[in-house]
Amino acid sequence: MALDLGALALKYTGLAVSDHDSIVAINIFIALLCGCIVFGHLLEGNRWVNESTTALVLGLITGGVILICTKGVNSRILIFSEDIFFIYLLPPIIFNAGFQVKKKQFFRNFATIILFGAAGTLISFVIITFGAMGLFSKLDVGPLELGDYLAIGAIFSATDSVCTLQVLNQDEAPLLYSLVFGEGVVNDATSVVLFNAIQNIDINHFDVFVLLQFIGKFLYLFFTSTVLGVAAGLLSAYIIKKLCFARHSTDREVAIMILMAYLSYMLSMLLDLSGILTVFFCGIVMSHYTWHNVTESSRVTTKHTFATLSFIAEIFLFLYVGMDALDIDKWKLASSSPKKPIALSAVILGLVMVGRAAFVFPLSFLSNLSKKESHPKISFNQQVIIWWAGLMRGAVSIALAYNKFTTSGHTAVRVNAVMITSTIIVVLFSTMVFSAC
Amino acid sequence: MALDLGALALKYTGLAVSDHDSIVAINIFIALLCGCIVFGHLLEGNRWVNESTTALVLGLITGGVILICTKGVNSRILIFSEDIFFIYLLPPIIFNAGFQVKKKQFFRNFATIILFGAAGTLISFVIITFGAMGLFSKLDVGPLELGDYLAIGAIFSATDSVCTLQVLNQDEAPLLYSLVFGEGVVNDATSVVLFNAIQNIDINHFDVFVLLQFIGKFLYLFFTSTVLGVAAGLLSAYIIKKLCFARHSTDREVAIMILMAYLSYMLSMLLDLSGILTVFFCGIVMSHYTWHNVTESSRVTTKHTFATLSFIAEIFLFLYVGMDALDIDKWKLASSSPKKPIALSAVILGLVMVGRAAFVFPLSFLSNLSKKESHPKISFNQQVIIWWAGLMRGAVSIALAYNKFTTSGHTAVRVNAVMITSTIIVVLFSTMVFSAC
Repeated sequence: MALDLGALALKYTGLAVSDHDSIVAINIFIALLCGCIVFGHLLEGNRWVNESTTALVLGLITGGVILICTKGVNSRILIFSEDIFFIYLLPPIIFNAGFQVKKKQFFRNFATIILFGAAGTLISFVIITFGAMGLFSKLDVGPLELGDYLAIGAIFSATDSVCTLQVLNQDEAPLLYSLVFGEGVVNDATSVVLFNAIQNIDINHFDVFVLLQFIGKFLYLFFTSTVLGVAAGLLSAYIIKKLCFARHSTDREVAIMILMAYLSYMLSMLLDLSGILTVFFCGIVMSHYTWHNVTESSRVTTKHTFATLSFIAEIFLFLYVGMDALDIDKWKLASSSPKKPIALSAVILGLVMVGRAAFVFPLSFLSNLSKKESHPKISFNQQVIIWWAGLMRGAVSIALAYNKFTTSGHTAVRVNAVMITSTIIVVLFSTMVFSAC
Repeated sequence: MALDLGALALKYTGLAVSDHDSIVAINIFIALLCGCIVFGHLLEGNRWVNESTTALVLGLITGGVILICTKGVNSRILIFSEDIFFIYLLPPIIFNAGFQVKKKQFFRNFATIILFGAAGTLISFVIITFGAMGLFSKLDVGPLELGDYLAIGAIFSATDSVCTLQVLNQDEAPLLYSLVFGEGVVNDATSVVLFNAIQNIDINHFDVFVLLQFIGKFLYLFFTSTVLGVAAGLLSAYIIKKLCFARHSTDREVAIMILMAYLSYMLSMLLDLSGILTVFFCGIVMSHYTWHNVTESSRVTTKHTFATLSFIAEIFLFLYVGMDALDIDKWKLASSSPKKPIALSAVILGLVMVGRAAFVFPLSFLSNLSKKESHPKISFNQQVIIWWAGLMRGAVSIALAYNKFTTSGHTAVRVNAVMITSTIIVVLFSTMVFSAC
């Protein structure tokens, strides 16, 4: 049960973090993060860019410079790892999403959000999986099994709505914002749960019973994860209310809130639940109860601290993805026939668009049917925006693809390299193009 | 130049962080951190305890429980690593010290602080080194070389004034507080610089020229580290003033401040300077200039965020030290003659007390001599408190001892195990006893 932080600090070369190269890498990375904030701000007037795309582009440029400096040997100062993503970067982003969400709008549209986020993602997953099974064989991608196709369905069902939310305004379009936002979080949770469920399923004995088991497990995860998050949030509220920290109160209150939120996420991971859902609902409960039990300065501090941590994690992520995109080994391996990843990416993008259209319009119709006269309905224009907003694929897709198709960020199999490079192309293209339009 | 975060996430067993055991370890650790805050608060009325001692005791208890659960095989869920200490835990603590210091008092007593922190630490270092050379041979510790004795001098010259500062009150005893506080930071920097200088020195060709070189290098490090920290602080003030972040301003301002401060520390490490001094002066400049350029909510947020991060890092550290203290392998190795580490610790504690007395009283006398009539002098009672306050040995000593006497937290040599266990005894004893009196 010993987690050796000393060994955690070992590089894959066997040297410690305190060695010179790693310190150089950390310095470059932090300087780039600062650069992203500064450039992102300077380019703010331009509607084609935001911090995320700035970070992506800066990451790509840095990767290119390193590639030239190392004479084509290496493009990365940090190698993407889904552990880092799921343990350090995702929790602050999702927690902040829950903490800052406008709860009134969110719960008013709760049914629609769950419909889009859970049922919609499942529809999209089915369409992408079957589409990939039908079309990939014509591209001669390589030997993929049923499990791989199911994983591809889950990987490309995970949307990335961070960029859209930077364009949509919470005050001007509250209905749209809460729908896109809520769907994004539920969708992230659904696709991760789906992905994990697929990894554990016995594909050779697939029948109705297994399907029912699968659905049952899915609902169980959804329910227990939510309950755990709510419980952690309420416990933090109770502790802070009971203890009445006096001297140094703010530091202790903020520390308790940060630690309890992270604990809820890790506990959820420990129990094999969905950490994303848990920490999201923990954020909602904390902003609704705990936040009102703390001092005035704690309120200001928590609000901005969580936003800042989430902001840094997001830039870190996009910088990371941009830098990782130029990894020369995978491209060499994948590009024995250079057109293949591009053709594959185009097919995937098409499937993503069809898969999303296949649930946004029918489910909006259903949602409108069930609404009373007084409630605002989702107009066709809004449906198009919702469809468009969910086309971006981001870090969740990358993390899942790395989990499925690599071992610790490395692969030597051609078909895996093709899948990774295609995922990167889809993410770069969709983030750059869809977020700018 | 690739820092493989994937491999960073590898345990020493070769498994990834996402494996079950590591998640259990992280959960226990975060739960313990929460426990320390809650217990530390509940026991606040008691003058014998504070968060630090609570964390130490909780760490010891947890270590004991794990030792029993694993039937004496293991006591640690996290293995102490000086990389983690110097890269993640120390920077927020020292930066916050600089950020929150009362600058008026600090600069009024600047000469005395430097005298105590730099010259005093050197005197203490010389006395402990020569004392150890004279007394250790009588205890039959094992084969120690001149380099080892010099390292021991540096290791036990590093004070830990965190605990004292929790007892002293900045408003009631401003002179004492600023002296003890300032000396603590300068002392940390001096002993780390000393330790590194000793590691690089050629002991076999030691003469006056080498000594002069050593002193020259020491002054150079002191000066350049300070300049780097001041420059980083001023640059952050300039960036924030020039950019005038409008929307999301607080998040960006806070992010820039955190990132620039950390960058200054890592840059200092990269240039082989003293990161502690750099980040301390960066904190001072940021609180003096940058802090006045940001919005009101950023001021509240930064003040409390830095305090909270430092608070969490401190508890983490003491918990870590407490848990590591029961590492069964080292004790088995060291205790072939069980009295040895205890006798050795007693000798070291004696040397620490003598070494500190040897500079506090003479240097206070010098400082009083040079002061004009109008300035408050350091009374004898205050001198005793200053002497007492610096007797505690803490995480810096542990980190340096691990650096010198282990390889990635492990050792198989008996004399090294004896030195590590003695360091742990000195730290536990001095923290528990001296901070409580």
